[in-house]
Amino acid sequence: MKKTLFILVAVSVLISCNTSEKKKEVAPEYTELQKKASAMFGKLPVQAECETNSITTEKVALGKKLYFDNKLSKDNTQSCNTCHNLETYGVDNLPTSPGNDGGFGSRNSPTVLNAALHGSQFWDGREPDVEAQAGGPILNPVEMAMPSEAVVVERLSKIEDYKRLFAEAFPNEKQPINYNNIKKAIGAFERKLITPSKFDDYLAGNNEALSAIEQEGLQLFMDKGCVACHSGNALGGNLFQKFGLFDDYWKHTKSKKIDEGKFEVTKKESDKYVFKSPSLRNIEKTYPYFHDGSVKDLKEAVSIMAKVQLNKDLTAAEIDAMVAFLNSLTGELPKNI
Amino acid sequence: MKKTLFILVAVSVLISCNTSEKKKEVAPEYTELQKKASAMFGKLPVQAECETNSITTEKVALGKKLYFDNKLSKDNTQSCNTCHNLETYGVDNLPTSPGNDGGFGSRNSPTVLNAALHGSQFWDGREPDVEAQAGGPILNPVEMAMPSEAVVVERLSKIEDYKRLFAEAFPNEKQPINYNNIKKAIGAFERKLITPSKFDDYLAGNNEALSAIEQEGLQLFMDKGCVACHSGNALGGNLFQKFGLFDDYWKHTKSKKIDEGKFEVTKKESDKYVFKSPSLRNIEKTYPYFHDGSVKDLKEAVSIMAKVQLNKDLTAAEIDAMVAFLNSLTGELPKNI
Repeated sequence: MKKTLFILVAVSVLISCNTSEKKKEVAPEYTELQKKASAMFGKLPVQAECETNSITTEKVALGKKLYFDNKLSKDNTQSCNTCHNLETYGVDNLPTSPGNDGGFGSRNSPTVLNAALHGSQFWDGREPDVEAQAGGPILNPVEMAMPSEAVVVERLSKIEDYKRLFAEAFPNEKQPINYNNIKKAIGAFERKLITPSKFDDYLAGNNEALSAIEQEGLQLFMDKGCVACHSGNALGGNLFQKFGLFDDYWKHTKSKKIDEGKFEVTKKESDKYVFKSPSLRNIEKTYPYFHDGSVKDLKEAVSIMAKVQLNKDLTAAEIDAMVAFLNSLTGELPKNI
Repeated sequence: MKKTLFILVAVSVLISCNTSEKKKEVAPEYTELQKKASAMFGKLPVQAECETNSITTEKVALGKKLYFDNKLSKDNTQSCNTCHNLETYGVDNLPTSPGNDGGFGSRNSPTVLNAALHGSQFWDGREPDVEAQAGGPILNPVEMAMPSEAVVVERLSKIEDYKRLFAEAFPNEKQPINYNNIKKAIGAFERKLITPSKFDDYLAGNNEALSAIEQEGLQLFMDKGCVACHSGNALGGNLFQKFGLFDDYWKHTKSKKIDEGKFEVTKKESDKYVFKSPSLRNIEKTYPYFHDGSVKDLKEAVSIMAKVQLNKDLTAAEIDAMVAFLNSLTGELPKNI
């Protein structure tokens, strides 16, 4: 009996030792680079929460329908998805996008993916959030070209499906179909469009999620100073910077038109050529690059950025590594939104 | 006669040659560094013009009187100049400033010199220009603590001098003494507070305006990446950046309180620890440094900036050169404002 007890105790001690050892093995051991990067970029949330616009299932369902609905354009030809196509990483891959009447916008359509994480919206940051942004293109004459908020509301109010969906999404309101609720519903849907990638696995502790060259690129991305503007969990989208700190940008991008950026809104000298630093998530797929879509090749875009923003000439090997890292930011939309 | 004419012509040719040669010598020959720096920083204007607030002599005279007038504080104890002392480069050299009632503000009083060139005002950029800024501290309970705009206007309306000065500054208005005009007058005065320094002589073509070590510091300032945030003719003031990109700032500044920056106004996660990058003009004189005045020594401030914003360890020689360059930004107010 004593012997049996001893064996049992010994075995259980062995098992428990073994278990704790196993746990130790599984627990992530952060490398220096991982530690630095995870402190720098933070964690990607599952969805971009908002105090003034709760993300309910009903609102998201309505927002999704609106997002894909051509009825939001004058001639029923365009939806949000036309220029921000979710099948192609939230963009149309054109330098600038044609609108309802065939004219082209003056700036590249940025991706809607992860846009809700940005500090502000549009290339000049003139709107504070995705809700405010959503209301713009519908009424913009060179975009969806609806004549007024009232016409949009009137058109949707005639549709039975929308009567039900708006009532479900905004249950305590007497007139749930209104322009503000359209913006809120589309905004709630967009707040779900978050795309984690293997980079997030790496940040979460899986050192093998990134290959050697991807890690090398990440190191360069941090050391060369790219992170000064492309920081936070979207790697950009939260700060403004003058495009062309060390040289006129258009000499490098071969832009046809010199866009003065935020200056065009504020008329302040200090805002000349200032744009929002875009998020780099899914950058591999969201060509062409820059505010005017003037550059198609990511290597060229990286080289131009290093030259005009940091006064640095990157070697071919450095560009290869940097692009390998950037490609690791290509993510996936969660299923069943 | 012929001979005399020849001599005259010959002499005049000689004179003109000599003159043009002299001119050639005087014309600035830009070095590479000068070319790069003048393209980067641009030209300091004589005054900071504003479309919606013309800078007239009368408005500036009124603004100056208001700027120095203790009547703008509840107990007639403080003027704008109390915390933004023009005798000490537009600051009070305190970490944070005591207000009318003895309490201290939570952020360092930034210098008023060259502030009109900034893209926005306050450490969190919550006001767009010096006019809007000027209206804040007068009513702020921990600053000048006036109870309301009406009380300010009422107090000034009793003073003959002001009746005349406001009428002269705003000649076509029926009620020239109003809060908005107080802001406009102070703003117009502040738009004159521009301080050119020997650095501007250097940018204008005088290569000898900066010593070897100052030029070395300028080169470092550009090469190390400081210019990403401290750009434009005020060397800062136009962009926002997270303080502590590579490490929590308070671990380096030893700040007593963790100030969350722009986040405290916007409540956006992406604005956490984001502050306006301050202008570096007169930085030698506007200690203590950072939003909370937590660091007194400029060398230490430079070293912290390099570490937490750029992940760089500067050598003692590099810091010396950088500080030599920064000291070249100490300027002078134009006479007779």
